Amino acid sequence: MEFEVTPWEVKGEVDYEKLIRRFGTKKITEDLRQKIKKHTKELDTMLRRDYFFSHRDLDLVLNDWEKGEGFFLYTGRGPSGPMHIGHLVPLIFTKWLQEKFGVNLYIEITDDEKYWVKDCEWKDVQKYSDENIKDIAAVGFDPEKTFIFKDSEYIRNVYPILVRAAKKITNSTAKAVFGFSGDTNIGLNFYPAYQTVPTFFEKKRCLIPCAIDQDPYWRVQRDIAEKIGYKKTAAIHSKFLPPLTGIDGKMSASDADTAIWLEDDEKAVKKKINKYAFSGGKTTIEEHRRLGGDPNVDVSFQWLKILFENDDNKLKKIETEYLSGKLLSGELKQILIEKINLFLTEHRKRREKIDVEKFTKTGALAKKMWGSFFI
Amino acid sequence: MEFEVTPWEVKGEVDYEKLIRRFGTKKITEDLRQKIKKHTKELDTMLRRDYFFSHRDLDLVLNDWEKGEGFFLYTGRGPSGPMHIGHLVPLIFTKWLQEKFGVNLYIEITDDEKYWVKDCEWKDVQKYSDENIKDIAAVGFDPEKTFIFKDSEYIRNVYPILVRAAKKITNSTAKAVFGFSGDTNIGLNFYPAYQTVPTFFEKKRCLIPCAIDQDPYWRVQRDIAEKIGYKKTAAIHSKFLPPLTGIDGKMSASDADTAIWLEDDEKAVKKKINKYAFSGGKTTIEEHRRLGGDPNVDVSFQWLKILFENDDNKLKKIETEYLSGKLLSGELKQILIEKINLFLTEHRKRREKIDVEKFTKTGALAKKMWGSFFI
Repeated sequence: MEFEVTPWEVKGEVDYEKLIRRFGTKKITEDLRQKIKKHTKELDTMLRRDYFFSHRDLDLVLNDWEKGEGFFLYTGRGPSGPMHIGHLVPLIFTKWLQEKFGVNLYIEITDDEKYWVKDCEWKDVQKYSDENIKDIAAVGFDPEKTFIFKDSEYIRNVYPILVRAAKKITNSTAKAVFGFSGDTNIGLNFYPAYQTVPTFFEKKRCLIPCAIDQDPYWRVQRDIAEKIGYKKTAAIHSKFLPPLTGIDGKMSASDADTAIWLEDDEKAVKKKINKYAFSGGKTTIEEHRRLGGDPNVDVSFQWLKILFENDDNKLKKIETEYLSGKLLSGELKQILIEKINLFLTEHRKRREKIDVEKFTKTGALAKKMWGSFFI
Repeated sequence: MEFEVTPWEVKGEVDYEKLIRRFGTKKITEDLRQKIKKHTKELDTMLRRDYFFSHRDLDLVLNDWEKGEGFFLYTGRGPSGPMHIGHLVPLIFTKWLQEKFGVNLYIEITDDEKYWVKDCEWKDVQKYSDENIKDIAAVGFDPEKTFIFKDSEYIRNVYPILVRAAKKITNSTAKAVFGFSGDTNIGLNFYPAYQTVPTFFEKKRCLIPCAIDQDPYWRVQRDIAEKIGYKKTAAIHSKFLPPLTGIDGKMSASDADTAIWLEDDEKAVKKKINKYAFSGGKTTIEEHRRLGGDPNVDVSFQWLKILFENDDNKLKKIETEYLSGKLLSGELKQILIEKINLFLTEHRKRREKIDVEKFTKTGALAKKMWGSFFI
């Protein structure tokens, strides 16, 4: 079956090389990785292992950086419910970029868009927004250089620039890029304009870390940016975190079983991984010992590779032993269960202690932003 | 030729009875006029002479009033340039309503919509907004009971309710009612939502005085209001102020010659009326004396009837003498010229002295509104 990737659906086994050609983005080459490393000294796991694999204008971001012009980061979250591990992946990578370059980061909480897109109440979206902001802040961004804002609250500071952006985007473009139709409400139809706004928070170049299915959205920004006096945004694209149940598609919030939620306790994680994590192992132990497992389709191995085992030697050992049949599927799952539970425990510890207001109001960047108006 | 009335065009000789049936509104009957008069003691010229001739739910507004529930008024202005006399007509009538009922009035300055609809710069729209607000305030509204606001500034207080309204309006509805297409920018496509927002400023029934071509816009509000917990807005509709050049269509800002601008000085008014005001008189004085003029197609007479001669006896005398041929076309024009110049002089005097901030910030209602947030 041919795979399909749109901003609202990922189906089939994705051929990422083909996707780069189809979307017209560029591959992150070894040269580019080395250019990054020149400034960061080391490469994040997700870059090293080609999980972040594609980009637009990342070379220009690095050129700007080398010329001392700097850049800034922008990402976002639609507060439609609790968050799962898949939601954290681009944030964790973003945190690494912020740490290494010491740049400003803007995180848009799209409460308006989620209200428009879902059958839900405004107060629920607000509740999830506040919960999500805590989870996001707990990733460990620099509280003095990170501004997390809700669309509905920050609107007061950005409406004129939002209005300017909206003037440059036609209904036809919104329909083509976002798949809108006559039944779409005019709020959601308007949302693509707000999505471009944070790319205009600084005159520097903006860099957006995101999964590659989000790329079409940013093409809208790249179409209009120069017309209103700003730079086209750059982007760095990841592959998809596979859902528990199989290597195809991407982890989604719409089926609770295929995701690990940040709220999942140790027992829940253990149960889910053991029950649902698609295995590349053989059906009997004997067969597995004899023929070995297939790490390429094994979700547990892939999760270790993408997020949970940063040590290349350890990962290599796991891979080799799994391939040879020495490591059983259940043992591989156990490694992942321990890693995830450690990760979630630490995340929740940080979450409890986090001073959210630093990110939304009182930190240096947040304070500056509340005093700024964008026209 | 069959006439045509849409919110963006008025063509041909309008049959207002037919328009009432076509739009599905109701005629303002003598009974309804008397019901109004019970509370206002007298009837405004525009009501008396059937210039405000149609309505939706005006009977319910009066019922509410009689039950002590009250109502409120809402009107608006797109700040696309300087204002002409035609723009003031609904405002003058609105002022009369406010005076007689002592109710709150909200005036929306749609700077966002005008920017979206026109090829223009944001700063120009802001300049016109500020100029227009002065002209509007100078009409003489109660500064403690009138709130004039720019969309771009008041957005901070209304975004959540705007978001809720937008969720209930589909692209198809916006397209059908406002004539939007694929080329329409997503800002303008979103605007119908903001237009409904002031009708939700109070839980009471809203009454909108407007020309009848604007009625379709308010049908959008009437479709969604009850779904989000508010009353359907009522409306009271006027006919169109004829352009100088002929009795058909409506006075428009797009041809400077067919309108009298609030900035026009005495000489300009005299010249325009003498040169352009379409006359119902005969081509020679002799013929006019013998056959008389036709006040029904005479723009000068119609303007006197609609706006400038409130005294019914005086108007009757003018009509009789014009019909008989005693009053010449030039003399009729002279009467109008003097009336207009008096009107404009007084308007500009009030404009110079007006304390605009009362309406936008410091008056009792304005102050209350800046402290209110609509969810």
